[in-house]
Amino acid sequence: MFFVKTKDDCVFCKIIRGEIPSYTIYEDNDFKVILDRFPSSVGHTLILVKEHVENLNELPPETAAKVLPLAAVLAKKLKAALNCDGINVLQNNGEAAGQSVMHFHMHLIPRYKTDTVSIGWKTQDPPEAEFEALVEKLK
Amino acid sequence: MFFVKTKDDCVFCKIIRGEIPSYTIYEDNDFKVILDRFPSSVGHTLILVKEHVENLNELPPETAAKVLPLAAVLAKKLKAALNCDGINVLQNNGEAAGQSVMHFHMHLIPRYKTDTVSIGWKTQDPPEAEFEALVEKLK
Repeated sequence: MFFVKTKDDCVFCKIIRGEIPSYTIYEDNDFKVILDRFPSSVGHTLILVKEHVENLNELPPETAAKVLPLAAVLAKKLKAALNCDGINVLQNNGEAAGQSVMHFHMHLIPRYKTDTVSIGWKTQDPPEAEFEALVEKLK
Repeated sequence: MFFVKTKDDCVFCKIIRGEIPSYTIYEDNDFKVILDRFPSSVGHTLILVKEHVENLNELPPETAAKVLPLAAVLAKKLKAALNCDGINVLQNNGEAAGQSVMHFHMHLIPRYKTDTVSIGWKTQDPPEAEFEALVEKLK
């Protein structure tokens, strides 16, 4: 039924193979889109890539190219159906970034004025020299 | 010099046009990639789309297709140069989602064990009927 490479003991692969039930709102050859079973807010959606890859680093570029256009269509649908006030697109890479299932997925988090979602940080104000050194390393 | 549609009073458009200086690490016809001037963590990077569009909803699909492949290349570079422990990819739509500049941008946030970034929520456990109703609305 599936010709993509999945992993036996991965919970998202089990959902993709249909061994664990899910609330699926969209599916094609590359992606399965489900409602998060323990949502942050009403309509919290996960885009699962079908092929088992751990994170953005392993995602084939041709698949990566399809993710954000799909997210845009889904975000439009979420906005229209749920009348949310905003949407966060979030994709975590690594445990230190809050990734809990090591299978590439993207969160679409509908936001409401009364929700419990908190995304933030203490902003830093580094000296110019630090930025210049970073540009050298990264450009 | 630029043939993309920018907006006079938008701070990111001013950066794109070079009227406000920035620490640029990459640029092509569609995107300018800069270091966040008030970063959450070392290497906090912003992918700015050059054409002024407010959010994911307005982003042309052909541009949307280029964002995540670019993010993947940049994430690889950040990881290699900074030896961070993880990376968050975050794209906010709407004030309720924390969007402060109304010009489409994507955050790449390198994560370190000691950083001040906090991304989280209180998970909900809705009844099955709520999921079923949502699937009807969204599928």
